[in-house]
Amino acid sequence: LIRFASGDWVIDRPEDQGEGSAPRNGADLPARADARRSLDALLHAAKAVFARSGVDAPVREIADQAGVGLGTLYRHFPRRADLIAAVFRREIDACADAAPILSAEHAPFDALAGWIRRYAAFVAAKRGLAKALHSGDPAFDTLPGYFDQRLRPALRSLLKAAIAAGEVRADVDADELLGAVASLCMSAHSGEPGRAERMVALFVDGLRHGASNR
Amino acid sequence: LIRFASGDWVIDRPEDQGEGSAPRNGADLPARADARRSLDALLHAAKAVFARSGVDAPVREIADQAGVGLGTLYRHFPRRADLIAAVFRREIDACADAAPILSAEHAPFDALAGWIRRYAAFVAAKRGLAKALHSGDPAFDTLPGYFDQRLRPALRSLLKAAIAAGEVRADVDADELLGAVASLCMSAHSGEPGRAERMVALFVDGLRHGASNR
Repeated sequence: LIRFASGDWVIDRPEDQGEGSAPRNGADLPARADARRSLDALLHAAKAVFARSGVDAPVREIADQAGVGLGTLYRHFPRRADLIAAVFRREIDACADAAPILSAEHAPFDALAGWIRRYAAFVAAKRGLAKALHSGDPAFDTLPGYFDQRLRPALRSLLKAAIAAGEVRADVDADELLGAVASLCMSAHSGEPGRAERMVALFVDGLRHGASNR
Repeated sequence: LIRFASGDWVIDRPEDQGEGSAPRNGADLPARADARRSLDALLHAAKAVFARSGVDAPVREIADQAGVGLGTLYRHFPRRADLIAAVFRREIDACADAAPILSAEHAPFDALAGWIRRYAAFVAAKRGLAKALHSGDPAFDTLPGYFDQRLRPALRSLLKAAIAAGEVRADVDADELLGAVASLCMSAHSGEPGRAERMVALFVDGLRHGASNR
């Protein structure tokens, strides 16, 4: 049985390592496409399993759900922290990438409000990872920087458009907003269901108070 | 020299204990009034010294600022945690007592907004005590309950009046609000100066969005 342990993978009974012999030659395009597919499947499965069973879930559960062997999992992610960090980066990417899509499909205020809800849901879902992220493991060192680098411009552009449209007051700083919404979501989990959503909605309504065009 | 240590008072060189011989007879009214005066002075001084030098400040500094002897300080507060808890309770009382005063002097929304600012300042000022409060010392056991017991009714009455006047939307829960403002203040201290105040102001403006009378 192979399980996650406190930091690195712990292998009690090595098995299923035969898959490690797959070709890793860069010129072998079908193999590269395979590797990308198995990476995608692993990240997708890990996200679901972490959400369901926590970041200490048995690694077998993730490999099974991804439909890959344990050897493939270890090849991509030698340590558990590597997998956790990769899942987190991918979630940051998905949240940042939602900004231009919302912006193209909605009026500026609605795009902004929709993105803040999306971001709040991301923060709330990642509460379980917070302890791992603050464990000091070097695998997580670049994550806070990546978070800022991707999410700050996403919110800035939405906020700028909503201010330009007169739908939101002009005296609001996107970076402060990002931190404030995160703190509302991190702390509201102990209350009634929907509490974080209600508090974030109140906050978003504050954004349009005093706007020229509402 | 007598200083605060990690939990209890530490007395390196006993001195100035002569004051302990003051009459403690309950029927002795002047002495009782004296005791109340020295208690007030100690709490006032402790609040200022804790804010300036932290809760590990030398006890001599507090006694000196209060104009009382160390014996008096020890008689009122045998342990450091007792003094910290007493300062905290007094701050909670002052914040709760501000509600009816604001309510008498201002229109409902302004009274509500003013009280939330007052409460936010209280939470921000008490950040330094947060570690002590979560130390597990039994002297602090009743503080969270006292906080709720005094501050929830204060905010509820202000919110109710503002909703009744149509100045604030009706779908807001006072207890959730109390928690949300606290989390904004606790987390915003690491940012730019005034950040917590700006975020709380945004939140308060959200309260009047959709109100019938604004």
